[in-house]
Amino acid sequence: MNIFIIGIGLIGGSMAMDMKRMYPEARIYGIDKDPSHLKEALALGLIDEISDHEELSRADLIIVGIPVDEMLTELPAVLNAIHDEALVIDAGSTKALICRILDEHPKRRNFLACHPIAGTEFSGPSAAVEGLFRGKTNIICEVEKTAFKLQEKALDLFRDLGMRIRYMNPEAHDKHIAYVSHLSHISSFMLGKTVIEKEKNERDIFDMAGSGFESTVRLAKSSPAMWTPIFEQNKANVVETLEEYIANLKAFKQKLVEDDYEGIYREMDNTNKIKEILEGIPLNKQ
Amino acid sequence: MNIFIIGIGLIGGSMAMDMKRMYPEARIYGIDKDPSHLKEALALGLIDEISDHEELSRADLIIVGIPVDEMLTELPAVLNAIHDEALVIDAGSTKALICRILDEHPKRRNFLACHPIAGTEFSGPSAAVEGLFRGKTNIICEVEKTAFKLQEKALDLFRDLGMRIRYMNPEAHDKHIAYVSHLSHISSFMLGKTVIEKEKNERDIFDMAGSGFESTVRLAKSSPAMWTPIFEQNKANVVETLEEYIANLKAFKQKLVEDDYEGIYREMDNTNKIKEILEGIPLNKQ
Repeated sequence: MNIFIIGIGLIGGSMAMDMKRMYPEARIYGIDKDPSHLKEALALGLIDEISDHEELSRADLIIVGIPVDEMLTELPAVLNAIHDEALVIDAGSTKALICRILDEHPKRRNFLACHPIAGTEFSGPSAAVEGLFRGKTNIICEVEKTAFKLQEKALDLFRDLGMRIRYMNPEAHDKHIAYVSHLSHISSFMLGKTVIEKEKNERDIFDMAGSGFESTVRLAKSSPAMWTPIFEQNKANVVETLEEYIANLKAFKQKLVEDDYEGIYREMDNTNKIKEILEGIPLNKQ
Repeated sequence: MNIFIIGIGLIGGSMAMDMKRMYPEARIYGIDKDPSHLKEALALGLIDEISDHEELSRADLIIVGIPVDEMLTELPAVLNAIHDEALVIDAGSTKALICRILDEHPKRRNFLACHPIAGTEFSGPSAAVEGLFRGKTNIICEVEKTAFKLQEKALDLFRDLGMRIRYMNPEAHDKHIAYVSHLSHISSFMLGKTVIEKEKNERDIFDMAGSGFESTVRLAKSSPAMWTPIFEQNKANVVETLEEYIANLKAFKQKLVEDDYEGIYREMDNTNKIKEILEGIPLNKQ
């Protein structure tokens, strides 16, 4: 089996790592627009060989883990280049536009639209880790548009990686992921910005930061190249979540201004139930 | 040595745990307005004996780890009850009002105003852990108002606990801690609220939450009884940080609305330097 990984970063690289272990007979080829990533991936043993788009006709399985704006041209080009039995899987954090663009593609049946919820704030080949996908959720969209035999092949792969599967339509995916992922990133980036701006002349102040601050600004380390196109593609949903978040913050501030501490207590008490909710999803924990 | 812990929660309980190990000859007494906490602390071996305020005249060292509104009446009462050589240390997350209230107290020299930056989202005796304070920052305010011999005693304790010390005035503490701690808690609570409200009819959606969401809403598990009085006492600073945070979120939203993706990229890229800043404070990590 010839496996091609397009984009040797956290997702592509970690998947390569697991597949090397799971399928020792497979040969893993890497394609990346950044030559230094390819060299690094080879040195780390993530891939067996550096490759390019010319070679894609030999691919049996192609994993595409690149920024979602690049997906829009890359995925049609990959589908054009592959043979009839090959399976192309993407790992984009948005799904609606990607699915729409491929909808009429003559090789649509060779494509499976996925979002493995396994990202962290790290990126690049050195971020790859073994077992990244174990216990994580993989959201599959429009599964019915993929050839049955290739669905089966993909599900075997995800089972071997230890993932659990959820099926959704692309619009529902984008709507809900705006709440549980995209908004978290913005809240974290803007929190980091607020503190850095205020404390720019007093770096010592970060000595006062505890593990709570670190936890809330963790996502502000994420890659702007990856996240800008995500916010662009999911603009309508992200703007809506942001408006709701800002309204909630303003209401909280207003309660403070009015000395409504009972109201503030109640807000926090009501939100404490996030404890039980998060306990219900232990498998996505790292 | 008779050590009294007033408030057997995360901070008081963890300190009791370490002190039992460090000072085997000491006897540790617990005082808590919640009788079930006292029973639990005794069962967990955090304290040797359940005690009450009547016994405070026998205390040599008193650690007070209770909500900051209760501090305002508790600390003067404790100072009134102790003998002349006893040392009282608080662990409140605000410092200005506490210091102001004790400023004229005849036993002000027996008190050391502290904020050990070691809190987590957990509370109560069961949250106590050994070594909680190792490598953490302890902020001491108005050190010059504490008797020299008692300063020394306190510094010996903090050294044995493995803490590093920072001296600040109470107003500077409250101003800066609003940025690196209090604002994080509000951003996290309101993020949790926004998502819970939106998704209340679709609990399944939390299946889509990854480790990033968990990290940003972690602080929304914190105790409202502890946090309401913190926000009340630090109202002016917290309102200011909230206004800046809301302004930054609105500006980010506006960039999205106007399709200014270069601007969005730049915002995130500028904030990425939080990486280096956080790397500079490895000791506060858990």
